[in-house]
Amino acid sequence: AILGEIRRLLSPGRRAQAVGLPPLLEEHQRPLSGRHVLVTAGPTHEPIDPVRYIANRSSGKQGFAIAAAAARAGARVTLVAGPVDLPTPEGVTRVDVTTAREMLAAVEGALPADCAVMVAAVADWRVAQEAGQKLKKDGSAAPAPLELAENPDILATLAISGQRPRLLIGFAAETENVIAHAQAKLARKNCDMIVANDVSGGPGESVMGGSRNRVHLVTVEAVESWDDLPKEEVAARLVDRIASRLDSVRP
Amino acid sequence: AILGEIRRLLSPGRRAQAVGLPPLLEEHQRPLSGRHVLVTAGPTHEPIDPVRYIANRSSGKQGFAIAAAAARAGARVTLVAGPVDLPTPEGVTRVDVTTAREMLAAVEGALPADCAVMVAAVADWRVAQEAGQKLKKDGSAAPAPLELAENPDILATLAISGQRPRLLIGFAAETENVIAHAQAKLARKNCDMIVANDVSGGPGESVMGGSRNRVHLVTVEAVESWDDLPKEEVAARLVDRIASRLDSVRP
Repeated sequence: AILGEIRRLLSPGRRAQAVGLPPLLEEHQRPLSGRHVLVTAGPTHEPIDPVRYIANRSSGKQGFAIAAAAARAGARVTLVAGPVDLPTPEGVTRVDVTTAREMLAAVEGALPADCAVMVAAVADWRVAQEAGQKLKKDGSAAPAPLELAENPDILATLAISGQRPRLLIGFAAETENVIAHAQAKLARKNCDMIVANDVSGGPGESVMGGSRNRVHLVTVEAVESWDDLPKEEVAARLVDRIASRLDSVRP
Repeated sequence: AILGEIRRLLSPGRRAQAVGLPPLLEEHQRPLSGRHVLVTAGPTHEPIDPVRYIANRSSGKQGFAIAAAAARAGARVTLVAGPVDLPTPEGVTRVDVTTAREMLAAVEGALPADCAVMVAAVADWRVAQEAGQKLKKDGSAAPAPLELAENPDILATLAISGQRPRLLIGFAAETENVIAHAQAKLARKNCDMIVANDVSGGPGESVMGGSRNRVHLVTVEAVESWDDLPKEEVAARLVDRIASRLDSVRP
């Protein structure tokens, strides 16, 4: 009886449970087996000079949760991550980048993929002229305005690529008219689904940096709104949808 | 003998050791007893709109280490922290802020203090006109330049305050002429010491975000350069210097 108890405690499912992970799924529960899923996560940092940068608010938590869920569902997962201090999910290949241009290069280098989930909050603009040395405060006059240049649009670039993933999913963080903006983005970017969330709200109220998320899934056919859920649960449900959509169009 | 061993294992020093903390110091080893030390740490984030911001690169690790070391040396410690994801050191009162203006208000609210150690990498500039809603990419034209405004200088403001701490220490992150810039800053800001470090070097080579630091202590009398050290060791040594200087001018 004691030996049986020890064996039970040492079983893989039990070990996973002990470190807070869900048990490994059986083969028939791994619906993304044989698929390559590409995920981007986190912000990008666009340098102004060696110590200053422009960034988007993004903790990377939602993207990392999606990468983890896709790996647990059996996919080979490439996670292109902006500068965040999060552990790499088990079974995920991680590529760290800083700027939008580096993120685009890493995404293109990871193709082909069956599905790409572009969760990263990529900076729309970079500074037109990065300074090689730290800019000094003048102290007397008003600082010079910061000239900006538009960054490459990673989602739109993927959509028209010769290696466009079969299923291309974008994220949209909006502060107003969330669904209308997401529908416009879906059409403009030529992707298959936009996961939209409302990031309005002050510090502490916002989903950014938090552990929960309230999202709307916007496709050409429908808008589906999910309740406020833990980011892990959003990830697990989204991975289910990805698997169904990939199966329904399996060549 | 077994009971003795158990007692030894349960002793406060041993418990501290078990969780990776140094043992509590005896009273005579607590040279900042009765002092109030104010520390700022981390970056500030200056919002462009609800999702974008300008920031300085700063992990907050050096400032948090100094706050921890000062508390272990017996000081009452107020730590004014910009947006970083670090645990609050034991025995430290933490005030979280986002922008430079909020940091200045929190610092002024924490006075009087015997010593202030201004480690935070405060953004010199904020955006002149923060947008209430997320700015949209135009897509067709070049983005409008970002108009900037100068932020308050927290160190210089403290130096001329009616409640100027007896010992006022600034930090300087420089990419060139490190010591000359620190000496100029010491004179310009009217403080008692500048801790200067060289933050040049590419990603991975830089001290920013890393666990080690190479600093120069610049006062009107001297420049002292320390070897590359763990940030905790820089903190412990600096706290020794603070205690000596406060004792030498004890009223």
